[in-house]
Order: sequence, then structure tokens, then C-alpha cells
Amino acid sequence: MSLNTFGHLFRVTTWGESHGPALGATVDGVPPGVAVDEPMLQHWLDRRKPGQNKYTTQRREPDAVRILSGVFDGTTTGTSVQLMIANTDQRSKDYTEISQKFRPGHADITYHQKYGLRDYRGGGRSSARETAARVAAGGLARAALAQLVPNLTITGYMTQMGPKTIDRARFDWDEIERNPFWTPDAGAAGDWATYLDDLRKSGDSVGAVIEVVARGCPPGLGAPIYGKLDTDLAAAMMSINAVKGVEIGDGMAAAALTGVANADEITMGPDGPEYSSNHAGGILGGISTGQDIVVRFAVKPTSSILTPRRTITVDGDETDIVTKGRHDPCVGIRAVPVGEAMMACVILDHLLLDRGQTGGTRGAIG
Amino acid sequence: MSLNTFGHLFRVTTWGESHGPALGATVDGVPPGVAVDEPMLQHWLDRRKPGQNKYTTQRREPDAVRILSGVFDGTTTGTSVQLMIANTDQRSKDYTEISQKFRPGHADITYHQKYGLRDYRGGGRSSARETAARVAAGGLARAALAQLVPNLTITGYMTQMGPKTIDRARFDWDEIERNPFWTPDAGAAGDWATYLDDLRKSGDSVGAVIEVVARGCPPGLGAPIYGKLDTDLAAAMMSINAVKGVEIGDGMAAAALTGVANADEITMGPDGPEYSSNHAGGILGGISTGQDIVVRFAVKPTSSILTPRRTITVDGDETDIVTKGRHDPCVGIRAVPVGEAMMACVILDHLLLDRGQTGGTRGAIG
Amino acid sequence: MSLNTFGHLFRVTTWGESHGPALGATVDGVPPGVAVDEPMLQHWLDRRKPGQNKYTTQRREPDAVRILSGVFDGTTTGTSVQLMIANTDQRSKDYTEISQKFRPGHADITYHQKYGLRDYRGGGRSSARETAARVAAGGLARAALAQLVPNLTITGYMTQMGPKTIDRARFDWDEIERNPFWTPDAGAAGDWATYLDDLRKSGDSVGAVIEVVARGCPPGLGAPIYGKLDTDLAAAMMSINAVKGVEIGDGMAAAALTGVANADEITMGPDGPEYSSNHAGGILGGISTGQDIVVRFAVKPTSSILTPRRTITVDGDETDIVTKGRHDPCVGIRAVPVGEAMMACVILDHLLLDRGQTGGTRGAIG
Amino acid sequence: MSLNTFGHLFRVTTWGESHGPALGATVDGVPPGVAVDEPMLQHWLDRRKPGQNKYTTQRREPDAVRILSGVFDGTTTGTSVQLMIANTDQRSKDYTEISQKFRPGHADITYHQKYGLRDYRGGGRSSARETAARVAAGGLARAALAQLVPNLTITGYMTQMGPKTIDRARFDWDEIERNPFWTPDAGAAGDWATYLDDLRKSGDSVGAVIEVVARGCPPGLGAPIYGKLDTDLAAAMMSINAVKGVEIGDGMAAAALTGVANADEITMGPDGPEYSSNHAGGILGGISTGQDIVVRFAVKPTSSILTPRRTITVDGDETDIVTKGRHDPCVGIRAVPVGEAMMACVILDHLLLDRGQTGGTRGAIG
Repeated sequence: MSLNTFGHLFRVTTWGESHGPALGATVDGVPPGVAVDEPMLQHWLDRRKPGQNKYTTQRREPDAVRILSGVFDGTTTGTSVQLMIANTDQRSKDYTEISQKFRPGHADITYHQKYGLRDYRGGGRSSARETAARVAAGGLARAALAQLVPNLTITGYMTQMGPKTIDRARFDWDEIERNPFWTPDAGAAGDWATYLDDLRKSGDSVGAVIEVVARGCPPGLGAPIYGKLDTDLAAAMMSINAVKGVEIGDGMAAAALTGVANADEITMGPDGPEYSSNHAGGILGGISTGQDIVVRFAVKPTSSILTPRRTITVDGDETDIVTKGRHDPCVGIRAVPVGEAMMACVILDHLLLDRGQTGGTRGAIG
Repeated sequence: MSLNTFGHLFRVTTWGESHGPALGATVDGVPPGVAVDEPMLQHWLDRRKPGQNKYTTQRREPDAVRILSGVFDGTTTGTSVQLMIANTDQRSKDYTEISQKFRPGHADITYHQKYGLRDYRGGGRSSARETAARVAAGGLARAALAQLVPNLTITGYMTQMGPKTIDRARFDWDEIERNPFWTPDAGAAGDWATYLDDLRKSGDSVGAVIEVVARGCPPGLGAPIYGKLDTDLAAAMMSINAVKGVEIGDGMAAAALTGVANADEITMGPDGPEYSSNHAGGILGGISTGQDIVVRFAVKPTSSILTPRRTITVDGDETDIVTKGRHDPCVGIRAVPVGEAMMACVILDHLLLDRGQTGGTRGAIG
Repeated sequence: MSLNTFGHLFRVTTWGESHGPALGATVDGVPPGVAVDEPMLQHWLDRRKPGQNKYTTQRREPDAVRILSGVFDGTTTGTSVQLMIANTDQRSKDYTEISQKFRPGHADITYHQKYGLRDYRGGGRSSARETAARVAAGGLARAALAQLVPNLTITGYMTQMGPKTIDRARFDWDEIERNPFWTPDAGAAGDWATYLDDLRKSGDSVGAVIEVVARGCPPGLGAPIYGKLDTDLAAAMMSINAVKGVEIGDGMAAAALTGVANADEITMGPDGPEYSSNHAGGILGGISTGQDIVVRFAVKPTSSILTPRRTITVDGDETDIVTKGRHDPCVGIRAVPVGEAMMACVILDHLLLDRGQTGGTRGAIG
Repeated sequence: MSLNTFGHLFRVTTWGESHGPALGATVDGVPPGVAVDEPMLQHWLDRRKPGQNKYTTQRREPDAVRILSGVFDGTTTGTSVQLMIANTDQRSKDYTEISQKFRPGHADITYHQKYGLRDYRGGGRSSARETAARVAAGGLARAALAQLVPNLTITGYMTQMGPKTIDRARFDWDEIERNPFWTPDAGAAGDWATYLDDLRKSGDSVGAVIEVVARGCPPGLGAPIYGKLDTDLAAAMMSINAVKGVEIGDGMAAAALTGVANADEITMGPDGPEYSSNHAGGILGGISTGQDIVVRFAVKPTSSILTPRRTITVDGDETDIVTKGRHDPCVGIRAVPVGEAMMACVILDHLLLDRGQTGGTRGAIG
């Protein structure tokens, strides 16, 4: 990871601000011969698109992605791919207040301190709009994965909103697509709807936990010591706006286990090793086992809220701030497709890295 | 991060296996003119050294570090520094069993699948001995930071062992150095001693949570979007053996907060901005605020235990495994100096990156 | 250098094909606070623009550059800058022949072999149109350098066309801007005009040598061993289309010298060290001396010519090929601003790297 | 390339000074399963070893390489390999003069200016002893290539010493190993012996040109635009001490050719495309064609000579300097195995990169 780039071989560099003319992703190291077109990418962007229901920002962006390079006759050529998304809903507004005050919990003050200036329109580069570029790049990664690992699926969902967690006994993969919160627990979906509506009306916001699972990932991806699959996944998820924690498998709860309880015992199945459990989240020693890869991350509540908070101005004067505008009461919702995109990019990157170093062969068992 | 290297400008590449002749760290991008010698590095290695009490592995390694390059007349020259640690306590033993069986929860099986072969002596490259090299590199980073940011301190400590957490009301910085668990809670230290002793005798192991705090870090370090300070810290900590979760500030608990509760309100102090709280863990938008930088990570229990677990052999036969040998009942203890070392490396790296891009100046407030 | 990216801290990733909708450069690591706007970049692009005289391709591209991100209120913000140039003159033509035959001396056959497919329209990614993106990025680098090193100037010029070399006794800096060949020798300019006109009419093309000089570069830039200033300059120039050789200072001719003749003797001047000569081209041990940095590179003749050459088809059949279209009889002419751009990018990159590692201070002499 | 590291996937980081305890190479990204041991590497180091005849430095270094990690039971494991070479012939001498004066044409002054201090013993990090580490790493690359591309051979030789060039009509591959200059022209070998002996006695030194050829390299290696095979070769060769120019194929002479003369015409042979000539040096558009890869580089004369040259002291006083000690009268001789090593590293790196991105398949012709 290097400023605006992530990835080793499949490298994604994003660019663009919330209220500039456009934003996008420059994607390098794409395998040649991948079938891809704009509608395939748009499918994923539409899932992240704002303004789809009352639980997300009312900004109306079509987030229409254009492929400007690297694809010829519907196929990737192996050269760098440019994915561009125009910004269209940039309301003219008075930026005087936001340009002079720092929102608590927001990047306003640190950008000012680091760079000496900032593009304050809509948060500039620190806006979560940047994640649209990730979703576009993730769509491209998915297209490549579909050819290289046809059985791989990547699915994200919310497991917690504020203090409210799902009931894992009611986990239903099909439910995820049916509710506005991407949650696998239909009961939680109903409960959260009321809860979030009340919060929004009160001028407040709330955090969330998202889990992303990759099923069908082959063993052998990831590279010790600093190119571990979990290391790169942790970096990928932590780089998403507002994320404050990342877990692999049992995550922080692993600390409470004993070695006996934590052992994912191994047996021999018809297609190779099988495991009695998946505390490890599908990764051992930084390398995938072939089990489900399970990553979880926490998103803090939006700092842009209607409730006044104490802050200072650029001149150092103390004041209050109320952030009007079209903000997500729970940004975690729209982080679900973003987390999926990051998972897709990391897995593809490691697939390419692995076949680069090892040729992609696997040590035989049995 | 790239296989065995981490860092952007201050780049650390580690090498070596548990039972090879030596291991070490090749450190590039070191600022010139830093006063450093072997005893300064040895100080930090001694804290991680095995065999210091009954709670850590009884392997007896002096872990004596040698500086082979990049330092002249007691000062870094700006060229690559080689830090080497000889392996001395390599007991001859019969590796037949471990070479044929995969320990559940261990990298044995994934190394085999990825590479087709593995150095099974003591875990080879997947052994936590690799972290000695990190501590050596971290010592070098600390020496550079001591010149560049004299007021910076980096302190790690345990906040949880198995299900037992510290009482933050009893937090005492001075206590950390007084007990074998590096915990700031004297009450916990006593409790944990009994608990861990029992676990060890029963042939089991347990996980832990470590927190690392950097005090006195200047604002402005870190670089959006993929070079965020928290992104790099998450990667750095997740790359440590057995780590399954990483948190910044409130971490996973941030998900349960509302925006009102989560806001670290800002006031103007005599030396610049001050904050009412530190939910953010000292980082906003990936850039340091000047508050304490707070990182927490969970270490799973050692998978090498004396209690039999089900597994398979390289030939695919089902069997049981009992891992004899000199293993840590709670590897989290020795992860404390490792976490500190990673924090030191990441902060120094970002200090250099920042002055590279911005010249190290700060946007004025007030 | 990594596929489509070059640079360490000031990192340029280019994208786009000759006949796609657009091409551009994504520039990361730009220092904040640099005054820049589109006309400042356009100035440099106009120098490379095709169709300006009969000695360059008759393709008519305005090469109008747009800044899509990273600049706010006329100043860089420190975030990634997107520079986009639309392709406007894409004549519809019959690509059947070029899609089936490989031009000798062209990337057609190697792209086909590597990727299994290629964008054959105008050479796709292998077209020299990619260098427009470099010139745009170079313009941005120049803007940053103008603030950081105000006295630095970077000037490129042709010293040889085909077998015809300039007479260094007639070297005139002011002449460079006066003739269509960017040559400092007015006598050569006249001679070359006739020579090239004849070549063009005969359906042939010719090579050239370009020299780029940076005057006013501070000492201390560059980093041994693999980040040497000359190493990066060599890579930068060799990456330009059709370049087959790169020289620093005396270059290949240094082989013929004795140590006595090659020594640039040092004396003490009022502002620091002075040198009796500059065989070294301003770089010793990979680090700038403060003298003029002198780089020279050879451009081979365009392989797209009207004279029939023997080749094969994708089906492996032997045939002849004649490349019609709007090709430069001497691509070296338009390589002059490209070489300047690469010099600007490399110097800025090393300026940032140096102040990152060393803080930008200099060891005192005297 | 990044300070002390080169390579994308096969990454070599070198460390060590001329008169420190040791030097070496940390090699990352090595494919697993490569048969290698110390004698295999020593074979290549012995070719570069000083003191083998009167034409090279009389320093007596065994240059014995040790493999400290990454190899188990005679096979690479896929983890980082440490190759260490102890310095044994470090004569105690009086460094007063060399520590106070800057040798013209040497890195003394630029290291001082950049870092504020330097390890002046034997040139420290700027000593050509660093190239021993490259040769060791190159030996490892050759071992991997021997398994991956069995027919590949890499051979370097001198084509020019001072003003004296070989007669290509007398080119004999077998002659290269028979004379102390690695030249394929027996006639030149005799001539050069007398010439160099006279130069050495007169206290002078001389430059050289080395050519390195890779035969049997598959097509498809190299990646446009900034990861071109020729770009990386240019960087690799230019990074060798004292190199001032690099050429691919016809190199600088390509400038004098017309497009008609420069075209390597293509025909269809029994095993694929064949070429009428190899002006391109086996690389088109940055990608290998399958022809011989031909790289040439010029080495300047050693700046450490016995003839007095004017210079200044650290205090800025003007003085003369005579460099006594055991210096090579023609460092180009020992650069031959170094050039070969760099070629091996670059080709292996691109082989891994290529199979990472494309899977290593080739677009069919015919």
C-alpha cells in the first residue's frame, strides 16, 4: 500500500474528490483475456449507490462507470484499465462554515494540519465517495476471478448496527439481498429499520459491523511474512473510511480461547483436508486453507451529524458545529459492497502473486 | 508490504528460520546520523527473549544481535543496515512426527500446500522466532525516533489473558515493567499467574489482547487513502504470528456508538488543539491528530499444545497429534515487545514519508 | 518501476490507448501547495503535439489536458492528481491488414505473444501517444520543482539525426526553440530539414539522439545502490518508445578514457565545490554533484514505414507489409519534450525521497 | 528499484560495506523447490573474485558465500534467502588522508554531501565489493532459471578496453573462458594484456565495454510501459558501479539507421517466428521476442589512481590526491560476471511477473 495505491500485482490506484468533476480507479496488472464491460461493473456500483432508500444519503448520483482503457472488444488486454465515474450531483452551497470549522471525528483537522490546505467541498478526498472507485475496481477483480476461480463467491453482510447484533441462528444467505441493510437475519432487519429511522430523525448516526466471506477460495493464497493474506485483508478493510477494527475468523474473541478450544481439527475428506471448525477464518500462517475466508470490520458512526458538537475554527476560536447536508445515518450499510470489493481485489492479487512465485501448483496430500 | 518486506521508506526485510544458522533484518532507508550500537538494540531484544520465566518457552536463546552494516563509528550512514541474530539453542531431536503430521491451527498444512515442501524444524519460517528480527529493527527505529521526535514514547502492555481482562481503574504505567505479563494492572498480574500456571500444567494454552500506545506523536503522519497510518498499523500488527484482530481507538466497540457519543470534541489549548476524548485512537482520516495513538490486537492461543488433537498426515491418513517441545503457554506475553517494535517502525516510516511529501511543515491553527 | 507506474514517492501511473476514448496519468505523492492549472500543463503538451509541421505525424490532436482531481483553487492538495487527455482524431479506417500482420520492429508480435490479443488500432497501448501522459505529468513535476528549486532548468535537444551530428562548437541554447528539430545547432537544423524531407518522401524513417540537461540541480539527490539517480534516469529514458540506448555524461565514450583523462578535478569556488570538467554528467556514486545532469538517449527509426518489409500473419503465413498512415519520419523530434518530462519527474521524485530520508540537509564542506 | 532493493517479485536487497564484517544479499520471492547449495553459488563468485591475476585488485578475498536461510535439504522453501559473504582481507591502514580528501570521479564527495558522513574505509558502501552480493543473488537466479527454462544461457564478455575494440569477425564463444579479460577475440586478449600492463605501471586505469547475451529466453517476458524488459535491464546495468551507458541491441547506433535498414524482417520457421537480423536486441515494445537478448554497457576507468589529481578537503582546502591501495586498473573485467548476474535476476523476475499476470501462456501464431 502506497498513498493512493493498493495491491502487489493487481494494483488499484484511486483518484478524485467528492465535488471534483470525476473520480476513478486506475487498475494495473489486470490479467489479459478477461471478459468485462461497463454493465458488469455497473451491477456492483448500483449496490453501493446513494439515495436508494431513506437509510442512506439522499445525494443522487447515478455513479455511472466508464471504461476508458485496457479493454478491447469486450476483453481486457493486459494493459492498465481506467474506470471513471463522473460526479453529477454537486449542489452549489455555501461552504463558508465547513471551510472554517473542523468537524469532530472527521479528517478536516488532520488534512489541514498535514497539507496546510484542504478541499472542503463534501470532504474532498476524505469523502466516502472514494469508495465508488473501489467498487468499480472490485467489479473488475470479480470478472477476472470468475474466469480463474469459477466457484468462488464473495458475500458481505451486516451483523451489527449500533448495539444490536444479529441472531446467528436465523442466518439466511438469501435474506441478505432482501433488506436495505444487507443483513442475513430477517428479524434484525425489521428491528433495525425502526431503530435507524429514530436515530436519523434525532440528528444522530450509528456504527455497524460488516462481515465478508469468500467461499470457494483455493488453498495456498497468501505469502508469509508481510504479504500474508490476512495482513493484506486487514489493511484493505482498515483503509475503508470510518473503519476502526478488523477481525479474521474469531478475531478479538480468539484471545479468550484456550488452545484446545481454538484448534480447528483436520480430517481427510473426499476432496482433501476438512476441518471441524473455522476459528482461523480460513487462513493459517497467512495462507488460505481452502475453508471460508471470514473477515469482519467495524465502522464508526458518521461524524457529520445534526447534533451540535464543540469544535474550533481554523483561527483557533472555540465554537459549535452542526453538519447539515445529505449524510448517511449509518455509513456501515454502504460499506457492505465496499468490503466485498476489497476482498475481491485482495484475493485476485494473491492469486496472481501465488502463480507468479510458485506457478500455482499445490503440495499433494494423500 | 511485499512478502518479507514492510514499510515504504523505512523498509524492513526479515529472513531466517527457527532452526537455521541465523535470522535477521535488512533495514533500508534508515536516516543517516542516528546514534546506535548493539547494546541499544539488545535492550529491546532482551525483553522478548525466551526462557526468562516459567510463563514463556524454555528455549534458551541469548538472541544476541550483531550490526553487520550501515553503521560506522556508532552512527548510521544512511545505507542498508543488517541486523543478525544467531540461533544457538537448536536441540537435536527427532522430527519424524512433526514432518509428517500437520498441527491444527498451525501453518504446517498451508506451507505444505503452497510450497510443496516446508522446513519443519521448529516451524521454520512460520516460527515466532521471526519476531526477534522485528524487535531488532524496532530498536533501530526507536533510535531514529529518539533523535527526530524526542518526546515520543511507545509502550505496549497486556489488557486481557484468556477471558480475564484488566480493570482500567487500576491502570498504572509503572506497573507494566514490574510483572512478567507486562500488564498495567497489578491485580490482574497476580490473578493471571495462577491461571496460566494451571493452564500450562494441563497441557493447554491461551490467547491474549495487547495494547500499544504511542504518546507524543506529532500530528500529520499518515497518508490517505491506502497509506493511512491506521491501515499500516493494522497490517503491521496483523502480520505478527497468531494475531487475529486489530483495533484502533475504540475498535470493534465503535460500532455500538452513536455519532454524538463518538465525537471527540475539540477545544483550543495553549499548544494547539485539544480533545475531550480519544475514541479515534489518535487517527482521523488516516492521519495522526497529535493525541495518543492507540492500537490493540488479539493473539490466539498457541496451537502447539500437549493435549491430543485430531489431524492428518502428509499421506492423508487421519491421526492424533500432541506437540511436545518448549512452547509458550501464552504467546501473547512475548508479543508485547513485538507490537511495540511494529509501532516504532510504522511511525518512523510515516515520519519519513511525510517529510518527503510535505517537507514536514504543519498547517497553522490559530 | 512496476508495469504502468514509475517513481518512488512522486509516482506516475499512465493509462490509455492510441484509439481509445482518452489517455492520462494518475499522479500520486504530489507535494501539497503547488500552484498549477491546465494552461501550465498545456504549455508542455503543445510542444509535443503532433501535426505542427511537416516533420511530424499529420494526426491532428489538440492534446488538451484536463485536471480531474488533486487540485483545488489552483493549488495541489497533496492527494492524487488525474490528468486526462481525450483522443479526438481517431479516423475510421480498415484495420483488417494491421490486425492480421505484424510490423517488423514493432510491438505487434510481442503483445500478441504475451497477451494472446492486442488492441491493434494505432498500436493501442504501444503507441507513442502514451508519452502525452508523461508530458502532462512532467508539467506537474516542473510546477513543483519551480517552487522547491527555483533555479532548476531542464532542457532537451537533438544532437543527432540519422548519421548527422551537431557541431558542438556552434551550440546555442537560444537556437533550440527556433527550429522544428529542437537542435542547438542552426547549421544542423537547415541540413536536417532537407535530409528528412527526402527520407519522408522515399517512404523511409530515421533515428535520432536526444540530450537532456538539468541545470541548477542541488547536490545530494539519488540513493545508492538501486535507487541511484542515474539508474532511475536510465530506466526513465529507456521506457520511452523506441529508445535503444541511454548515456550519462560521457556515456559509452567513457570506456575509451583513462582514469587520468576521466577525472573531473575538484576546486573550491565561492559557493562550494567546482569541477574542471563534467565527464560524470553530474552524478557520482548515483548521487548528484550539483553540476549539470546530462543524459543522452538514442531513438531508433519508426518501424511504421511505406517501404515494404517481409513479415508473417497471425496465421503464420509469410507476406509483405507496408504501413500506411500518419507516422513520424523521425520520432526522435517529438521525444525531446518527453525526455524533458522524464527528467523532471525523476528529479522531483529524488528530491522528495532525499528529504524523506535525510531531511534535505547537506554535509558541510569548508 | 528502491534504494538497496531491485526486482518486482524476485527481489534482491543488498547490504554491507567494503570493510565492515560482512556483506550480502537478502533475496525475496524465490520460487520454492529450486535445487541450490553453496558450491553452486560459489562457482559464480569465484569468477568475480579479486586477486586472480595481475589485471585485477590484489586484495585477497575468498568471497565464500554462506546460505543462512530459505534453503532446506538442498532446496529453496519459498521464504527469504540470506546470502552472506564475510570480509576477511581488511588491512589495517591509515585512513587519515582518504577520510579528509575527496577522490575526483568517486562517490566520496556526494556521500558526504548527502549523508553528512561516510564510511571511508575502502569506499564503504560505494565500493564495488557490493557487486559480490549481486553475483551471489545472480547465482540463485540462475539455479531457478535452470529449472524453469533449461535451455537459457547467459554469457557476458568484454568487447572493448579503452579505445581498443574486438574484431567481431574473430568472435569465438569458447575463447571467452580462456583469457583473463573474458573476451571472445583471442587477438584482442593478447593486445589488451600488454596495453593494460603498461597502463597499470604508469599509475593509470582505463574503461571498458561489456556485452551480456541471453540465449534461449522465451518470448513474452517484460511488461509495458514502465516494467519493460529493456527498462529493467537498463536500470540493472546502470546500477553497477562506474557504468555510464547502457545499450539494447544496436543501442546508440540505432540513431544512425533508417527504418528500412533497422527492420528485423520476420519469417516463419519450424518452431515459430524467425528474424532476418536482431537490431532490436531481442526486445520489442519492452517484451522479449525469443531472439537473443543483447545488452551492452560502458564502465568508466577507476577513479582511484596513482597519478595525482587536484581536489579539495572536507575543510574546503585545495590539494592533490594520489590513491594508493589495491585497485583494479580496469574494473570492467570484474564487471563481466556482475552483468551476467543482473541479467539473470532481471529475466527470472520477469518470468515470475509474466506467469503471475498472464499465467505464462503464449498467443498462438500459425
